Amino acid sequence: MSRRAVYELHDISLENDALMLHESIFHNANGYIGVRSNFEEGYPDGYDSIRGSYLNGFYDYAEMKQAEKLYGMVEEKQTILNVADTQTIFLYLEDEVFSMYEGTVLSGRRWVDMEAGCTGRQVVWRSPKGKEVEITIKRMTSFVRTSLFTIEYAVKALNFDGEITFVSKHEGDVSNYSNPDDPRVAAKSARHLIPVSAKYQEDVSYVVTNTSKSNLKVCTAVKNQLQKGKGECREQEICGHGAEERIETHITRGATVTLVKYSIFCDSIRHRDCKQQAEEELKQALGISLEKHYEEQKAYLANYWEQSALEIEGDEELSLAVRYNLYQLVQSVSKDEYGNIAAKGLSGEGYEGHYFWDTEMYIQPFFVLTNPDISRNLISYRYKTLDEARENARICGHKKGALYPWRTIEGSECSGYFVSGTAQYHINGDIAHAVVAYYLATKDMEFIADQGAEIIFETARLWMDAGNYHRGQFHIHEVTGPDEYTCMVDNNYYTNVCAQYNLHWAVIFYRQLKDLGRIETLAKKLSITEQEVADFEQAEKNMYLPYDEELGINPQDDTFLQKPVWDIEGTPKENFPLLLHYHPLYLYRHQVCKQADTVLAHFIFEDAQDMETIQKSFAYYEKITTHDSSLSTCIYSIVAAKLGLYDKAYEYFGDSAKLDLWNTHHNTKDGIHTANMGGTYMTIVYGFGGLRLKESGLYLAPLLPEQWQGYQFRINYEGTHIQVEIDQEVCILRLLSGEAKELHLYGRKLLLENTVTAKRVQA
Amino acid sequence: MSRRAVYELHDISLENDALMLHESIFHNANGYIGVRSNFEEGYPDGYDSIRGSYLNGFYDYAEMKQAEKLYGMVEEKQTILNVADTQTIFLYLEDEVFSMYEGTVLSGRRWVDMEAGCTGRQVVWRSPKGKEVEITIKRMTSFVRTSLFTIEYAVKALNFDGEITFVSKHEGDVSNYSNPDDPRVAAKSARHLIPVSAKYQEDVSYVVTNTSKSNLKVCTAVKNQLQKGKGECREQEICGHGAEERIETHITRGATVTLVKYSIFCDSIRHRDCKQQAEEELKQALGISLEKHYEEQKAYLANYWEQSALEIEGDEELSLAVRYNLYQLVQSVSKDEYGNIAAKGLSGEGYEGHYFWDTEMYIQPFFVLTNPDISRNLISYRYKTLDEARENARICGHKKGALYPWRTIEGSECSGYFVSGTAQYHINGDIAHAVVAYYLATKDMEFIADQGAEIIFETARLWMDAGNYHRGQFHIHEVTGPDEYTCMVDNNYYTNVCAQYNLHWAVIFYRQLKDLGRIETLAKKLSITEQEVADFEQAEKNMYLPYDEELGINPQDDTFLQKPVWDIEGTPKENFPLLLHYHPLYLYRHQVCKQADTVLAHFIFEDAQDMETIQKSFAYYEKITTHDSSLSTCIYSIVAAKLGLYDKAYEYFGDSAKLDLWNTHHNTKDGIHTANMGGTYMTIVYGFGGLRLKESGLYLAPLLPEQWQGYQFRINYEGTHIQVEIDQEVCILRLLSGEAKELHLYGRKLLLENTVTAKRVQA
Repeated sequence: MSRRAVYELHDISLENDALMLHESIFHNANGYIGVRSNFEEGYPDGYDSIRGSYLNGFYDYAEMKQAEKLYGMVEEKQTILNVADTQTIFLYLEDEVFSMYEGTVLSGRRWVDMEAGCTGRQVVWRSPKGKEVEITIKRMTSFVRTSLFTIEYAVKALNFDGEITFVSKHEGDVSNYSNPDDPRVAAKSARHLIPVSAKYQEDVSYVVTNTSKSNLKVCTAVKNQLQKGKGECREQEICGHGAEERIETHITRGATVTLVKYSIFCDSIRHRDCKQQAEEELKQALGISLEKHYEEQKAYLANYWEQSALEIEGDEELSLAVRYNLYQLVQSVSKDEYGNIAAKGLSGEGYEGHYFWDTEMYIQPFFVLTNPDISRNLISYRYKTLDEARENARICGHKKGALYPWRTIEGSECSGYFVSGTAQYHINGDIAHAVVAYYLATKDMEFIADQGAEIIFETARLWMDAGNYHRGQFHIHEVTGPDEYTCMVDNNYYTNVCAQYNLHWAVIFYRQLKDLGRIETLAKKLSITEQEVADFEQAEKNMYLPYDEELGINPQDDTFLQKPVWDIEGTPKENFPLLLHYHPLYLYRHQVCKQADTVLAHFIFEDAQDMETIQKSFAYYEKITTHDSSLSTCIYSIVAAKLGLYDKAYEYFGDSAKLDLWNTHHNTKDGIHTANMGGTYMTIVYGFGGLRLKESGLYLAPLLPEQWQGYQFRINYEGTHIQVEIDQEVCILRLLSGEAKELHLYGRKLLLENTVTAKRVQA
Repeated sequence: MSRRAVYELHDISLENDALMLHESIFHNANGYIGVRSNFEEGYPDGYDSIRGSYLNGFYDYAEMKQAEKLYGMVEEKQTILNVADTQTIFLYLEDEVFSMYEGTVLSGRRWVDMEAGCTGRQVVWRSPKGKEVEITIKRMTSFVRTSLFTIEYAVKALNFDGEITFVSKHEGDVSNYSNPDDPRVAAKSARHLIPVSAKYQEDVSYVVTNTSKSNLKVCTAVKNQLQKGKGECREQEICGHGAEERIETHITRGATVTLVKYSIFCDSIRHRDCKQQAEEELKQALGISLEKHYEEQKAYLANYWEQSALEIEGDEELSLAVRYNLYQLVQSVSKDEYGNIAAKGLSGEGYEGHYFWDTEMYIQPFFVLTNPDISRNLISYRYKTLDEARENARICGHKKGALYPWRTIEGSECSGYFVSGTAQYHINGDIAHAVVAYYLATKDMEFIADQGAEIIFETARLWMDAGNYHRGQFHIHEVTGPDEYTCMVDNNYYTNVCAQYNLHWAVIFYRQLKDLGRIETLAKKLSITEQEVADFEQAEKNMYLPYDEELGINPQDDTFLQKPVWDIEGTPKENFPLLLHYHPLYLYRHQVCKQADTVLAHFIFEDAQDMETIQKSFAYYEKITTHDSSLSTCIYSIVAAKLGLYDKAYEYFGDSAKLDLWNTHHNTKDGIHTANMGGTYMTIVYGFGGLRLKESGLYLAPLLPEQWQGYQFRINYEGTHIQVEIDQEVCILRLLSGEAKELHLYGRKLLLENTVTAKRVQA
């Protein structure tokens, strides 16, 4: 990959759409706190902005009225909350307040430095009265101390001596984004967060807010430190919902004065006394210098980058985009089991901060190979919410097993439209698949015994109740596959093959645990019997996987191929994404796919079909897939690579890599697309690298896109670090640390003890 | 049928559930006004009551929030409004106010007289202080003057002389029913009706109210007349939202004093100046005596009963129930094209006053044979709302044609859950079927040319866009059939056969109109071409009708038979209706039917299949049908009769006849079930009578249930009145008036010139 670690804009657009986009692009997050990149000084009236700070897993309940009431419909959802605003700082040059919309912006740039783990904005500004300053603002959410957010606000007087004043705000009276003009966003924000106290204590402002329904609390603490000012005069003002500090100082021409604003966020999910915790954490944070914090941040990221060590030679632009995407993953992923990875990470309010199957099928494939601890945490989150999944299964009529929710924060279903939400039963298989992938990469049987097996058994059980035998084969009816343009179908190929895998591994884990003498407690807890396991095995063996003889493909479901084919070519460009322009019934009635569905199955469960079926299916589905979902192009890239369709593979890889930085889906303003970011990683390592984790071992079959001179990546396989290097001629595998491992390279089994060099095969 | 025309309760239950039920059972309606049978004096605190007066087709818009927004989702519905309360009258015996909850009720009864067209309540009451009165209250909504509602409130002093006072209210500040404890009803009533003026003018109170969103108005006028009181003292009080008149008079022991309260309802849908219209109508109503009004009412009903002349000998109880059901049809049906027949008639707010396919498939079969004018009006309502149906088709993605809404008042879709609402495309075929039925019964080609053909062409067109050819056959995907426990399916048998019929008649009418030289204007208006008609014909001929070789039945849809069969026997009784206890996904995943679906098709389109298929299908579906819908048992009765399953036919007939009077669905409090009432008629005339209207003519094949000694009915066939009499031995057809007609009796074609007597055949 490009050695470049800085993504920079050399100009700061003040156009509203660009502003909102860049709020997402340059947001700071550390897996716990996320702060959108709003201008500290705000915007003039009339400008729309999503000004927000979010905490992973911190939510309130919100009413979700159903137009018609049906049994089991969800009427209350969780929604991520915009918490206290600590990013607001006004700068006064005597009586003139800094604003990019007044005076003259002489130059401006914004950046994110992915090695430093900071974002920045630098502006050279001439005030209406002619004072010139260079303002450099650096923001960081610390990966090492996840409750900490810092703003370093440096002002250099270019052509004057005088008084300057910082007004630093700490505001608890905030609400979620709403826009009466945008039908996709709440027109009026409900009041979720209620400020309960605000006070100064030893120059630190503490604001405590309560959620209105979920009974949660967050305490924010803010400390403003002035550096290098000549003398300072402070005024503190407090009101019921926030605090404001005015710091006046003298600046001389050519000198720089810096305000460092430390913000601490502590919530009551993670801490019994969040106010006390905030005090403690702030004290620790202030115990070391800002420079030290920057060093810690850099060291954390150095390790992060080293784990994957993805380097590409060639195509600088896309390489930088890849790095950006991987950076967003570490920004987005929770480092504890109280959170997960929201569809938009911590960059915005799109999808209300909900967690989807995106985590397991698009992001876990990265963490499982590079950060097994994070991967395990993500599974622990699912384990922690297993009771809610059981409850969801009961609501959906199942007497046994668990059904994971389509979208959630604390574990219960938040889908308001079950047809393309709760009906996506494949989420059960996806989570099971992630458990197995973690196991295959780590062989951590201890974790399987503790948590993984229970997830696998409970999800497997659900298939037994959701499906039924018909003429000797196991069918699964009335579910929705990944493709949301075709809903509530019978025998969705992806779902069935996913269920089959789930059942298969339930049997394996049961037997392994039995052999280890560790099944009894669990079997008793779950009332699981040998007969039930035998039933799993029988269903697995007899799973019906639709196949069309005439076309030689796997139909997406039982009746998919009977429907008319949507005329994608003939559809006006402005009618995409289709979901915003066509009634669901009309979409459902056509052969048209929002995203990879059968093609996804052919990647994940590739051994279920021969190459010819996969090839024909790819050709068939590619023509009718709009990629209106951000979960699609990465999968098409991977399968194209597998099929030797290199140009297509590269093109789809590019689509995936560019999605947010190029804003190709026109909605990055609502937040980044984390699943696609994991997908970009997959296009390289699983796609071009041909990596697969299977019951039979680790497989690699790297090819080289012609746009590249070479690339490399590192993986952690059963505790062994392996570096994979590909260039024009050869593929080299290096054992960096750990024990020797057997693996398959280009289909040939070998033992990696030190280094293996193989002639590169282009399939 | 029983000669009895009075349904009476010899006791007045004051238990809350019974009160609400009887409010529906004894409501007064005339197709325009509906007034629930609330006690004039109201109820004590803590009693729940749906106090309401409704006007057919009079609505406001109400917000319908969608939990998740999707393209085309309906976010505003129409809802029937509770309009001004004119039924409230308090009676004071000096300082004691009459209430059935105080003092002693010495006797009480309520009744509906279906020949007189009145309801009544009679109470002998002893006040706490010992005064005894006999109160007799008679209420009528006039069929002859549909804006008129009268209450005749007679008080006889049994044991005292003294002053009595009537306080007669006229209240415009009313709202729809709400109940925070019932999840199926609005928790809080939105404010729909806003009183704009109230005044007295020549002892008449006029209250004008406006709807809050639909910009409609209603004016109510009330006149209180005192009869036989000795002297009277009136006090009138007016406020912004209503009027109250106190009339004090002297009564002597043994004498009767009567208050007659005339209420007039006029709305701005039907009248330009509804206040002026109300004045005018009241003047006319007061121009004749109350007795004269009663006579008019009786004469109107005499004619109504004569048209159908349904008489049954035997089973008094069910016979009375049949009469009750037919009475509700004339109460419910609009006499103009501004209204239709709501699912609950004008008896309550259930289903919000919406019109469904119930009209066409369950109620039109009665009117088409007995009141062709009403039948035509009902079609005109659909014609009048054709533009809204076209708009609905556009929303659903169709470039051509019309798609009638699942539920509506003014014509636009009000379904909040399209899966079992808008997706019921068969409503198009149902309306087309009603047009054809009207034509077959009347041969009124003039009406077809004017209105009917346009409906048929526009509905036919929709099938061409909704369906597609697959392997040479015409398929229709992603629709919902009548059975709401199975949704969004492919090739629902009922829908496909219904579409086939629709296409068939589009071709026929096109050619007939062409032959008559009357197609040009219409063809030009609709841009309909010969090619399009040829396409209709081809689709009709190649319509795919699913058939299962193994079972010898028509599967409900493409994959219905693959699903597991619901264990109805094993389902706890308290879990019915299933929809209130199971998630839709779970229901959809099983072979379980809420109602007749394929079996309905086998009645309506019986010639599409042979007898064996119909017989086997009936046996198959009967086992998996819960009849949780009120549209089901009547159809099962008819098909059972056709198949010679007489006991079943009679039992299902009984279920249908009893539904509301016995409150077997436990929800008659929300209003009567009009579709089932039409269904009861069908069980007799189409079921036992074997009547069918076909392209090839009129068919009769009457059988006699063993519970009856005989029965008879009259029909109007192409302007000829025919009486059908069945007894133990013979079936007699009498031509009562009109020209001789060819028809088929027991499969034999004959010419009815005068009387035909045939030996009765029991199939």
